[in-house]
Amino acid sequence: MEGVLTPEIWIAVAEKTGLPELRRTTRDEPDYDKLMRYRLDILDRHGIKLTDIQNVIGTLRPLPGGKAFLDELRSLVQVVILSDTFEQFAAPLLQQLNWPTLLCHRLVVEHDRIVDYKLRVPEQKQRAVAAFKLLNYHVIAAGDSFNDTAMLIEAHAGFLFHAPDNVKQQFPQFPAVDTYADLLAQIKASIAG
Amino acid sequence: MEGVLTPEIWIAVAEKTGLPELRRTTRDEPDYDKLMRYRLDILDRHGIKLTDIQNVIGTLRPLPGGKAFLDELRSLVQVVILSDTFEQFAAPLLQQLNWPTLLCHRLVVEHDRIVDYKLRVPEQKQRAVAAFKLLNYHVIAAGDSFNDTAMLIEAHAGFLFHAPDNVKQQFPQFPAVDTYADLLAQIKASIAG
Repeated sequence: MEGVLTPEIWIAVAEKTGLPELRRTTRDEPDYDKLMRYRLDILDRHGIKLTDIQNVIGTLRPLPGGKAFLDELRSLVQVVILSDTFEQFAAPLLQQLNWPTLLCHRLVVEHDRIVDYKLRVPEQKQRAVAAFKLLNYHVIAAGDSFNDTAMLIEAHAGFLFHAPDNVKQQFPQFPAVDTYADLLAQIKASIAG
Repeated sequence: MEGVLTPEIWIAVAEKTGLPELRRTTRDEPDYDKLMRYRLDILDRHGIKLTDIQNVIGTLRPLPGGKAFLDELRSLVQVVILSDTFEQFAAPLLQQLNWPTLLCHRLVVEHDRIVDYKLRVPEQKQRAVAAFKLLNYHVIAAGDSFNDTAMLIEAHAGFLFHAPDNVKQQFPQFPAVDTYADLLAQIKASIAG
């Protein structure tokens, strides 16, 4: 979702809160748990609550062209968004995208303080793809980051979208595209093939 | 989907084509393969093609209140529709419902003649619920017919909606409701509990 259909939520939070340490994403730190502990620690030290972050997310919009791309894709095939974001963060963006199905994680919140996070399951993107394959789906996956590559390997066809150079270089087996038109063309070719 | 959010497609086809034999549904014939062979045989004998049926489906509308119910549900939880319909039939109704994710079967079509059907997997509704449980979801399922009961048993919570008396009588363990308001209340209670 983030980086593909919507802005990176944590980067927006970093900008609005004036805390540049929060700019770190899975593009920079492949160890997701390490990244999340680091983020929650920063929030705590600065007294930033869930509603503060939700207020920031409410000001975000999908990336230009993202909704039109998703609308067309949903008319062609079944679409499920697999993300390492959290249900409590995603709702304002999902609403703007007409409520596509999103499988992701949950934050543990006590009195508006984010005390922990619960991963859905370890490697949930990859396991979700594996589950859809067991249900006899031909799975085409696209993502932009290190936390997408296990999913791309698991899928029948995988594409990098908006991926930074270090991801592209480490995973040259995945065609890399940078526009929605190109991604849609790749997906259509994969369906037809 | 059919009987819960939309009219029964085959019944509509029976009415528009003037072929009452096509009114038979899973409510009447629990053996799905037997029912489908029977339907395809009737279509063939009367020369009814895929586009004929698609034209009928294009005139259908979701059940009154169905879209509002689904909209509210999608703002609360992740929703996936599990149906024994076919992708080629569902699109005009999905579009009217704002493209919810639908897992269902496919028809095998040759020159507009429906020659066969491909089940996604045997017992796909039940297996889809099992897959979401493996992904650590708390699954709440609702359905109206015999082909929903394995799914309802597999789910953490199961409800009958608009179910005929013979289904209710055989499966008294599932709370039976008849309005979207009551179903939404049951689902909310299940989430909270």
